[in-house]
Amino acid sequence: MSTSADIEREEGLSFQPKFDASGLLTCVATDAASGEVLMVAHMNDEALRRTIESGEAWYYSRSRRALWRKGETSGQTQRVVEMRMDCDQDAVWIRVEQVGAACHTGRKSCFYRRIEGAEGGARLVFVDAERLFDPDAVYRK
Amino acid sequence: MSTSADIEREEGLSFQPKFDASGLLTCVATDAASGEVLMVAHMNDEALRRTIESGEAWYYSRSRRALWRKGETSGQTQRVVEMRMDCDQDAVWIRVEQVGAACHTGRKSCFYRRIEGAEGGARLVFVDAERLFDPDAVYRK
Repeated sequence: MSTSADIEREEGLSFQPKFDASGLLTCVATDAASGEVLMVAHMNDEALRRTIESGEAWYYSRSRRALWRKGETSGQTQRVVEMRMDCDQDAVWIRVEQVGAACHTGRKSCFYRRIEGAEGGARLVFVDAERLFDPDAVYRK
Repeated sequence: MSTSADIEREEGLSFQPKFDASGLLTCVATDAASGEVLMVAHMNDEALRRTIESGEAWYYSRSRRALWRKGETSGQTQRVVEMRMDCDQDAVWIRVEQVGAACHTGRKSCFYRRIEGAEGGARLVFVDAERLFDPDAVYRK
């Protein structure tokens, strides 16, 4: 059953981000020009606020447990062209102008492997996997 | 530090989906024709396997705690054109042919509101919010 709070969250104009038990929501970043999905990451309240205020993408790293401005180490920043909220306000879609590459492996998108069905399971196949930067040079300098 | 298991997961061709503590990974579905993000949802091992095998999108509903074939109630199915895995294998991107509308509110995409910065916070603005079906008629028949 939908409560009136659910209906307000889905049909209203008030910004009510719904963070999970870890205080995070999911963010999908796509390339504003090509529509390609660049990455899926997480934002906490602070990352979401800073992204809205600055027009640059900020995330929260679960592994490093830290707020993180995209590109602060690599220089591969994301300028936000548009932000969208989903129906139940637990996921955000940002269309961005990506400087260089979004993926820490040096590739434009994190989604550089196709999943193909195979005998008894699945396998991966590289596609669009060209590296735009050398991660060893960028992250260990 | 990257372990050899991390490197294999990122640079290898073996399918090693990394589920979270709840047994789920994140799935982003985009419209294969327009590139629009339709929805963000979750898959457990079974949903992922069935999607690969059938070429139709299956998800796991966290609220209903149940495996769910997209469109089984609404008829708004998703035929998978391509599946991609992300670098650390905890997110999947599917490009789909969407029958009708992806969102349970009857809209093509779940992302029918733009987030705009406002005095002291943010507000939402409807965009692309036309309903393609009446959810009351579809879900409560």
